[in-house]
Amino acid sequence: MSISEEYINRITSGDKRAVSRAISVVENEDKEKIELLQALYKYTGKAYKIGITGPPGAGKSTITDCLIKNLTKKNFSIGVIAVDPTSPFTGGALLGDRVRMTDATLFENVFIRSMATRGSLGGLSKNVNDVCKILDAAGKDFIIIETVGVGQSELDIAQTADTTVVALVPESGDSVQAMKAGLMEIADIFALNKSDRQGADEIVTSLKNILHLRSPQGDNREIKVLKTIAVKNTGIEELIEEIFDHKKHLSSTGYLDIKRKEHLSNEIIEIVNLNLQKTFWDKENSEILSKNIEKIYSKETDPYTFIQSLNSNINL
Amino acid sequence: MSISEEYINRITSGDKRAVSRAISVVENEDKEKIELLQALYKYTGKAYKIGITGPPGAGKSTITDCLIKNLTKKNFSIGVIAVDPTSPFTGGALLGDRVRMTDATLFENVFIRSMATRGSLGGLSKNVNDVCKILDAAGKDFIIIETVGVGQSELDIAQTADTTVVALVPESGDSVQAMKAGLMEIADIFALNKSDRQGADEIVTSLKNILHLRSPQGDNREIKVLKTIAVKNTGIEELIEEIFDHKKHLSSTGYLDIKRKEHLSNEIIEIVNLNLQKTFWDKENSEILSKNIEKIYSKETDPYTFIQSLNSNINL
Repeated sequence: MSISEEYINRITSGDKRAVSRAISVVENEDKEKIELLQALYKYTGKAYKIGITGPPGAGKSTITDCLIKNLTKKNFSIGVIAVDPTSPFTGGALLGDRVRMTDATLFENVFIRSMATRGSLGGLSKNVNDVCKILDAAGKDFIIIETVGVGQSELDIAQTADTTVVALVPESGDSVQAMKAGLMEIADIFALNKSDRQGADEIVTSLKNILHLRSPQGDNREIKVLKTIAVKNTGIEELIEEIFDHKKHLSSTGYLDIKRKEHLSNEIIEIVNLNLQKTFWDKENSEILSKNIEKIYSKETDPYTFIQSLNSNINL
Repeated sequence: MSISEEYINRITSGDKRAVSRAISVVENEDKEKIELLQALYKYTGKAYKIGITGPPGAGKSTITDCLIKNLTKKNFSIGVIAVDPTSPFTGGALLGDRVRMTDATLFENVFIRSMATRGSLGGLSKNVNDVCKILDAAGKDFIIIETVGVGQSELDIAQTADTTVVALVPESGDSVQAMKAGLMEIADIFALNKSDRQGADEIVTSLKNILHLRSPQGDNREIKVLKTIAVKNTGIEELIEEIFDHKKHLSSTGYLDIKRKEHLSNEIIEIVNLNLQKTFWDKENSEILSKNIEKIYSKETDPYTFIQSLNSNINL
């Protein structure tokens, strides 16, 4: 057993260095990863997970900043996972937005980690789930998961978070655009940020109208549209109250357990799927594919015949 | 053999009803799907695939409309795949934008099909690839693939298209936002649409500056930023010229083959992966999971121990 009891104790008591190392173990897919997650699993389930998502430019980082500050003032301990898309262009995560969070990191009870998405199929949410477990076991009261980019990661967040806050701005376009983006389906709360800008009231009205048409969510709760101006910390207290209210609603209706079991089930399916892929595309099969791609491309054979030659158990 | 030679002939001669039926076979995952795709595969490879992507509200549908009209005037036959996200909220694809395309469908040589994404892992691009093959075999000169929503589908398009056009609007936010969204990496051409609006020139300049910093793509070609006003058909001819130029560049450098082989390889990997998942999560394993989720949730066991009990061959 390479994971010592003492190390687990350090993590569960919230020791920052131990937590940091544990996250690295998970991110780097180190050998002891599974053993670590197994050992920590029984300490999880206490943290409440808040997802912050929305289109680029909606001020998600600033809202996250405000939530951190306001929640720490209430003596809660906070873990933050900022999901940055790795850009092959810049060769790394875009951390510009995170710089502003330096003042928040001064607080004793805040642990902030940026994670790159690396663009891999399903890889994002799996890693986010794992890091959540570590922060949860480390005793954080709240874990805020914030997506920085656009893409599947925005929608995946609802597969992890207990409460999903969708941030929009008056410039995000009309509500039909929000529907198209799939954000309407995942929102537990809307925060119309930069709400001192032109068109804010129209967006709020239009969102509310559309939400009236929407069939009720599993949790059967009215979705509120709140106005915030995160740079001025305006509306953040109301947002926190609304998050608390959603939390209370989920707990009292028993829907929190239902939601979390569903998330857990999806997480297990995802872990299995990624492993099936990894196992199948070992060195041998990958080499066979690259050796045969010319033949398939030149129509000497077709993809389906080729796939069945790889493994006759594949039932196309 | 349930697929008759006569049916294949009707598809490859571009018979609209036969093509339409073939697409339905693929979309509905009918029994004869693989046989059909196998039979059609040797007729593929001639169509040139243009991807249109970008944030919601960028006018992608209008640009697609214009491309259809202008390309049919040049006597090209066109296939169009409009990827609509299925919204659990509305219970179907959002087809509002497509209504405007009715006039385009009047043209003899245009075949338009909307596809729902259904939000399933990897399901989107696989179906798009299959429908592309049918339209390709049906003799279309160009296939335009347009994403309507935000999400992974936007980025997946570059895994299918030969030329990816990213549409932006002055309101899309500064260029850093475009980088974050991962759109910078997939663009072969930028179309700044609604370019008569305020801020257009600033966006063009800022995009060009950023593109200068970007490491060269595989095809080693300068990425142009074009201004369009699709509702007035302004700039569309220039956009088509630029697409043709990119096509010529890819062909003459041999990079078209490299790109298509890479796409084919990814497609094969994806088909295999989806099949592995489907096979693993048969009725039996799905039932075992749902029977045990309570135990895992209550920490009687942990997800990793459970997964290994499902199949000891899974190498976590």
